[in-house]
Amino acid sequence: MGARGGNVGPVTQSSRPRGLFIALEGGDGTGKSTQRALLGEWLEARGLEAVLTREPGGTELGLLLREALLHGGDVDPRTEALLFATDRSHHVASLVRPAIERGAVVVTDRYLDSSVAYQGSARSLGRDEVRELSLWGTYGLLPDLTVVLDLDPVVAAERRAGEAPDRLERESLRFHSDVREAFLELAGAEPARYLVVDADQEPGAVHGLITERVAQLLEGGNAGADA
Amino acid sequence: MGARGGNVGPVTQSSRPRGLFIALEGGDGTGKSTQRALLGEWLEARGLEAVLTREPGGTELGLLLREALLHGGDVDPRTEALLFATDRSHHVASLVRPAIERGAVVVTDRYLDSSVAYQGSARSLGRDEVRELSLWGTYGLLPDLTVVLDLDPVVAAERRAGEAPDRLERESLRFHSDVREAFLELAGAEPARYLVVDADQEPGAVHGLITERVAQLLEGGNAGADA
Repeated sequence: MGARGGNVGPVTQSSRPRGLFIALEGGDGTGKSTQRALLGEWLEARGLEAVLTREPGGTELGLLLREALLHGGDVDPRTEALLFATDRSHHVASLVRPAIERGAVVVTDRYLDSSVAYQGSARSLGRDEVRELSLWGTYGLLPDLTVVLDLDPVVAAERRAGEAPDRLERESLRFHSDVREAFLELAGAEPARYLVVDADQEPGAVHGLITERVAQLLEGGNAGADA
Repeated sequence: MGARGGNVGPVTQSSRPRGLFIALEGGDGTGKSTQRALLGEWLEARGLEAVLTREPGGTELGLLLREALLHGGDVDPRTEALLFATDRSHHVASLVRPAIERGAVVVTDRYLDSSVAYQGSARSLGRDEVRELSLWGTYGLLPDLTVVLDLDPVVAAERRAGEAPDRLERESLRFHSDVREAFLELAGAEPARYLVVDADQEPGAVHGLITERVAQLLEGGNAGADA
């Protein structure tokens, strides 16, 4: 798809300085939404604009797609991968890029690696295919930092007890273990752009590890991580 | 995307005989829905199961996507291409393939060539990229026959007078001329799989030309046109 070519087409690139793009990844129940909220407060306390968002469903169109994905019944794995890529493409074009370009720090609950981990490995589509699809749809936008909240799927399942599970959550424990491994492999391949945090500790401790890394990024200027 | 690889993955291929897959293409106002209805009656009069469908919006999920596409406001061209590919992927997996495999004749109002013509040429995305995206999503399914209803865009616009135009219809005449040329070029490149019909004649005459070709296909067995 020529995704690696990066920013071609109608997306205009601003001159620097620009903001930061941070993705929180990990299975359900690992604390992504809690950490996103804490990070947002931390950023705002430093006078920065924090844009907190998520995938799927970070836009109006995305909400329709999220509904279709989570409760729409069985779809073919490739259809599902295309739905996620569509949501991501619109999310980046309409929300993420404009925010980064005006200097905000965007913190998203899930991004490309979730597609790679869930569809590209556990669902037996090729990881490279799924990744290319998303990179094509986003003109190659990668996060400056991806935080992997790492947790044993059994512990994560206990945390979620009492919540009504959606379709993806009902998948087997084996599935969730495969997803965890995929996140760790992605992080291992690009340590400069990843932070793996043991999520089996108090939220405040996890938050401290995340902000330590984000502070470094803010001090050093951003990494400009377009693919 | 490896789309040309064809039928890999979870789609099971039945043994022959199988049905036929016919796509009607052309701009708005060229008579596709009229010809689809006439062809459906003709097929049923011959004791065949005719499945009449369309893109976007041939499935329940597709209706959501169609709504988003036609009335959802501006989206990036790549987002739009992904939306159409998602709709097509689900349409093929849930409706078209099962019908072909039980021996039906599927007649769709628009298919892959509409994406190539509208997004891949008039909207300045690469035709090959748009085509690959759809072929990946459909495991390479191409029609046995694609009928291009060819009409001067000015005449087509006159035919549509009085109907409320949707977003795509409001695009300029130049756009519609580019789309027309794209359909003709696609047909010219693969004459064995295409029939170009002058749509500036009575519906009955157009119908006669279409059924002449379909009859040949039915007599000769089908072409099994997976990419």
